[in-house]
Amino acid sequence: MVEATRPTPLAEAQAFRMKVRRGEHARHTAGQAPGMVQGNVAIMTADDAADFLRFCLRNPKSCPLIGMSEPGDPRLPELGDIDIRTDVPAYRVFEHGELVAEPTDLSNWWRKDLVAFVLGCSLSFDEALQDAGLRLRHVELDREVPMYRTSIETAPAGPFRGPMVVSMRPFLPKDAIRAIEVTSRHPRMHGAPVHFGDPGAIGIADLARPDYGQPTVVEPGEVPVFWACGVTPQAVVAASRPALCITHKPGHMLVTDRRIGDFAAF
Amino acid sequence: MVEATRPTPLAEAQAFRMKVRRGEHARHTAGQAPGMVQGNVAIMTADDAADFLRFCLRNPKSCPLIGMSEPGDPRLPELGDIDIRTDVPAYRVFEHGELVAEPTDLSNWWRKDLVAFVLGCSLSFDEALQDAGLRLRHVELDREVPMYRTSIETAPAGPFRGPMVVSMRPFLPKDAIRAIEVTSRHPRMHGAPVHFGDPGAIGIADLARPDYGQPTVVEPGEVPVFWACGVTPQAVVAASRPALCITHKPGHMLVTDRRIGDFAAF
Repeated sequence: MVEATRPTPLAEAQAFRMKVRRGEHARHTAGQAPGMVQGNVAIMTADDAADFLRFCLRNPKSCPLIGMSEPGDPRLPELGDIDIRTDVPAYRVFEHGELVAEPTDLSNWWRKDLVAFVLGCSLSFDEALQDAGLRLRHVELDREVPMYRTSIETAPAGPFRGPMVVSMRPFLPKDAIRAIEVTSRHPRMHGAPVHFGDPGAIGIADLARPDYGQPTVVEPGEVPVFWACGVTPQAVVAASRPALCITHKPGHMLVTDRRIGDFAAF
Repeated sequence: MVEATRPTPLAEAQAFRMKVRRGEHARHTAGQAPGMVQGNVAIMTADDAADFLRFCLRNPKSCPLIGMSEPGDPRLPELGDIDIRTDVPAYRVFEHGELVAEPTDLSNWWRKDLVAFVLGCSLSFDEALQDAGLRLRHVELDREVPMYRTSIETAPAGPFRGPMVVSMRPFLPKDAIRAIEVTSRHPRMHGAPVHFGDPGAIGIADLARPDYGQPTVVEPGEVPVFWACGVTPQAVVAASRPALCITHKPGHMLVTDRRIGDFAAF
């Protein structure tokens, strides 16, 4: 009997990215290239980039920076053979805070003064939680994770300021403890949670009405656990209304050549 | 100006243990030899020791084994230049489960078939929590930590079985998250907690009435966080009523030559 050989996770990531580059995959990236890091993308002019870099460094739980390009250079060699103009399935272009286009490549938008930032993403840490044997309600319900604006203020830098956005996963206390242990090993994918229990303590009025994503179910005996979320920088950048800003379309992430373990603090 | 030189933590531990050996310190050991591991002690006959070893291995959170002697040999070279007959400030001797003596050395009790076990202790992990900048209510109130019998059953081995005993420390959720991160690095001092929140979920009827230690105060917004506790093996051994069992007197621990960091999982 001949067994089918499965490609390595790295080979899967590279093959998937080539499909995206050729325009053959413009959908979301959940479940693609398991074991490999996926990233949030934010692209802005060099003028804004210095402030945004400082914003990331001051808010590492919301904005865990894993890669940054040189001005005008679309490559990100530390994350793989990447061309940020073509390797994300879908983009969103904002001018002065208004959404003006949703292209699938940036050939018409790239400029010599643009800088690309890649931030760790909770798709990767959901995978780490599942590898630890934890069940994720939003995955089992086949929904997006619910996300909420909070009363926790980010540390501002230049024009960038605003509330922290968090994602919520319900767990029994013993599983919440395990989830805290696991995610504390992944500081570049938002790390340990910022809160658990009473939503009102961080300014969330109603768990059933998330600001982003879809509501989930908190069963009796479970507590909601809240992690800083990559939507934070997107919301903060949008609110600062820069002349130009380009992000990935939510759920349509950059698949990198880095393993989840590469960024873990074991 | 001449500054006083402070001895190293190791030198302090050794000097302290010599005082205990000479009979010059028969009181509790809290605050002694900061940075060094203190241990719970359980001594029993070789007949019972095999079952107890298995019990420790099956219940690593309650019974984190850090040292074990050869039968009849009172030394524990892996923990320092230790003579277990003289180096604990006060002992308790149980015959068939009954407390029969509280000697300060074991010269009248030591036998050629005795085996000594040393288990990690929460005094050491309280120090790790404080080093991480966390405030401990029971320390600030100058009380013993409150401890409770739970409805969580230990995994039995031979005659050893019974409920897990837990210690409780109240924290705001953000500090509880940090405390979970810190203690998860110390698997040989009980590790991460076993529960937080609703005491009834683990069979604790009233936080104000601990089974051991002293009650503490849970402030509004705080949650009680529960760790497996070294009283578990003592309660389990007492309940199994072996012909002979010797433990340290509560709070009167063995001070070892090992640093807290030696046992950490960083």
